[in-house]
Amino acid sequence: MKSVAINGFGTIGKRVADAVAAQDDMKVIGVSKTRPNFEARTAVEEKGYPLYIGIPERENLFKEAGIEIAGTVEDMIQEADIVVDCTPGNIGPQNLEMYKKAGVKAIYQGGEDHELTGLSFNSFANYDDSYGADYARVVSCNTTGLTRTLHTLNPLVDIKKVRAVMVRRGSDPSEIKKGPINAIVPNPPKVPSHHGPDVQTVMKGIDVTTMALLVPTTLMHQHNLMVEIGNEVSNDEVIDLLEKRSRVMVVEAGAGLDSTAALMEYAKDLGRSRNDLYEIPVWKESINVVDNELFYMQAVHQESDVVPENVDAIRAMLEIESDREKSITKTNKAMGIL
Amino acid sequence: MKSVAINGFGTIGKRVADAVAAQDDMKVIGVSKTRPNFEARTAVEEKGYPLYIGIPERENLFKEAGIEIAGTVEDMIQEADIVVDCTPGNIGPQNLEMYKKAGVKAIYQGGEDHELTGLSFNSFANYDDSYGADYARVVSCNTTGLTRTLHTLNPLVDIKKVRAVMVRRGSDPSEIKKGPINAIVPNPPKVPSHHGPDVQTVMKGIDVTTMALLVPTTLMHQHNLMVEIGNEVSNDEVIDLLEKRSRVMVVEAGAGLDSTAALMEYAKDLGRSRNDLYEIPVWKESINVVDNELFYMQAVHQESDVVPENVDAIRAMLEIESDREKSITKTNKAMGIL
Repeated sequence: MKSVAINGFGTIGKRVADAVAAQDDMKVIGVSKTRPNFEARTAVEEKGYPLYIGIPERENLFKEAGIEIAGTVEDMIQEADIVVDCTPGNIGPQNLEMYKKAGVKAIYQGGEDHELTGLSFNSFANYDDSYGADYARVVSCNTTGLTRTLHTLNPLVDIKKVRAVMVRRGSDPSEIKKGPINAIVPNPPKVPSHHGPDVQTVMKGIDVTTMALLVPTTLMHQHNLMVEIGNEVSNDEVIDLLEKRSRVMVVEAGAGLDSTAALMEYAKDLGRSRNDLYEIPVWKESINVVDNELFYMQAVHQESDVVPENVDAIRAMLEIESDREKSITKTNKAMGIL
Repeated sequence: MKSVAINGFGTIGKRVADAVAAQDDMKVIGVSKTRPNFEARTAVEEKGYPLYIGIPERENLFKEAGIEIAGTVEDMIQEADIVVDCTPGNIGPQNLEMYKKAGVKAIYQGGEDHELTGLSFNSFANYDDSYGADYARVVSCNTTGLTRTLHTLNPLVDIKKVRAVMVRRGSDPSEIKKGPINAIVPNPPKVPSHHGPDVQTVMKGIDVTTMALLVPTTLMHQHNLMVEIGNEVSNDEVIDLLEKRSRVMVVEAGAGLDSTAALMEYAKDLGRSRNDLYEIPVWKESINVVDNELFYMQAVHQESDVVPENVDAIRAMLEIESDREKSITKTNKAMGIL
């Protein structure tokens, strides 16, 4: 039973903690917060996770709020085999020295640059690369989404060039200080965006160019893919392949799953924890091969698609499981992933 | 002085009426409404347009509302050299018989199919095709936007293939019964969308494939273009060409014009009628040639970009002006278009 610490208990951290807790070969030995908010209280009182504080000087604030703490983050990582760093983008790099000093392995999230660890992770594309590694980064929700479907297609489809336009949600559902409220925002306005190179960190050599924007929705990102291919492939073969792959689902707009909002409703009906949709839904109607080009549209639940990847990364880096498919199946089963 | 009737005084109709009224070689002899709402009242009391009613049985409603009417649409078109049909999509086709019987020329909008008139219009791409024509259709706001920039690039750029992903506003600012409020909607979920073939009605032979979706904003559509090219072109040459072309503007995100909302604010500052932005803004930062492919992002003010095209279509069809550039310049000057 390996010991996992979660540094940062926000959108991703709290989901990774619950996903780790659901496995039978690893356990959560602690989570951290910097402020005694409702998430800190839930961690302790509802989930029963030992709570460590990121900023020792704030001990009093937690005491005043009546939230029991177990120590500092430095204490927490002493006990851990691996720490999953889910702190905000600019904090993570500062933590690396602390992890090195404590001799603890660490997983970063996609908000960090590939260069921080020199190793990026996706369960399907390059599990083996992180086997036994000390530091790796699980790529972002968007990169994970692109990689999931492109890597699935890879054995069937001779991918020559990929173009993707990514329509991103403006903020997460609980955020109130971000926009836009009524605008479409080229983000970045520069083309291509950084997402293409990020896919290349886990799918070496793939030719992929991306454009990205923000829109006023909180529910999911949406991707429009145009894949130039070098061989003859039928729509049915593509659909069949995507349907067989776990963490990818083929959905029908005609059956009412006609928007990101409908997909989130579906996750509720599935009884998912926090209504999460870990799978990448691909719209069946959009899958179409025309003139050696495969088109499709997919969505990405930005809060959750990387969560099972973090569990697999833990298994690879701690050498719990050398077979990627076995880890994926185990993670899926524990989390109820289709 | 040619006589123009506007059948339908909604989003497009009221703008076309004002644009026609601003010209010195044509006049508005009447506009029509089916209901005595604020637009009907404004047409008569503020603009001084003779108001005709689309449904004769409703005469009483207008009387009760105290809005003076000049007759029925059938009366209106008797007096006209041409009628601009701005009625909702499903009404227009029924009107064609009435126009034919009255011997009046007619311009339709992009909501109708190309097949209705067999002739589609864009001022830059195919003005001459409609010279003297009896019936034509001004292509939709999205098709007009795509055509404006692609046709501008045409002399410089050897266009091999165009891919465009169109992120469309969910509803116009005054609409309250349409969504989405918090979703991204593949629309259509089928790929390619109909917009590509629609561009081909005015730019014959161009290879263009489109994908389209709806998002929760009211302000403008946004287009992401990927143009495969057969020759060497620099970013500066593209920028230079787009800057020189009227009804297209190169804008800088870095100067604060970083979203569709900022562009609408700019239109307000320009003092435009109804804050309209007739021009297609192209984001300078997005213009980039990489590996024989030109990328750019643009926006489309769905309520107004087709308005100057309607004026030019009138001039072509009534043989007021045989030179497309002269008509464009005249229209631009009267409307204050850059």
